[in-house]
Amino acid sequence: MTFQLHDQLAADTWTVRDLALCRVLLMNDARYPWLILVPRRAGLRDFHDVATADKSIFLAEIDLASHVLKVDTGAFKINVGALGNMVPQLHVHVIARFEADAAWPKPVWGIGEAVPYEPSKAGDIIERLKKGLQG
Amino acid sequence: MTFQLHDQLAADTWTVRDLALCRVLLMNDARYPWLILVPRRAGLRDFHDVATADKSIFLAEIDLASHVLKVDTGAFKINVGALGNMVPQLHVHVIARFEADAAWPKPVWGIGEAVPYEPSKAGDIIERLKKGLQG
Repeated sequence: MTFQLHDQLAADTWTVRDLALCRVLLMNDARYPWLILVPRRAGLRDFHDVATADKSIFLAEIDLASHVLKVDTGAFKINVGALGNMVPQLHVHVIARFEADAAWPKPVWGIGEAVPYEPSKAGDIIERLKKGLQG
Repeated sequence: MTFQLHDQLAADTWTVRDLALCRVLLMNDARYPWLILVPRRAGLRDFHDVATADKSIFLAEIDLASHVLKVDTGAFKINVGALGNMVPQLHVHVIARFEADAAWPKPVWGIGEAVPYEPSKAGDIIERLKKGLQG
């Protein structure tokens, strides 16, 4: 079984880059700087399903994405979550939060409607994050 | 600076046990089997603030808590999240979810009001989880 990105994740995001384990996506919602990390392994569902051999790189990539996003945005807080109630493929949300954002202090999920980026704006952010994620 | 559990976490939970790194708490909300892991280190705020030397044990304890909770409850899905928008001390939610639970498929945060356990019921759950978490 080979890895294939879930259709819903593909529809909701822009691709930033592939790291050693995870594909890094930018959620197409201009309200929040919001990355999604998807381990490129087939059949993963829960956070603890990641194979032992992949665990340290998995955590390191979550940390890298959090750090890069925090530095790039000046976020007040980073939210990390693996829910997967709607999309069963394991994916980890890494979200930059601000005290003035559209959902604060609530979690972002299920609050209002996504506001798609203007493509040029998304392109700028993706370029910056792509460079930061080179590590 | 020594570790001290945040007052709000202390007020909202029962203590299950201390693992090598994290204190494991049971959220006092009978609607969901819900653990909270708090690394016993002072000054942590974001998920990526955990010291390099602690990272592998941190992930291992999240995985252990997820596994024990899933086995104990027969959960359909485990949700893992570190938000901390309300309580700044780093804490990781590990929540057993069911397709018939009070918030499904939404995240549990901010949906309705917590339903406190009857103390004897909480005691039974804590005893079972405490045993499971012996590893």
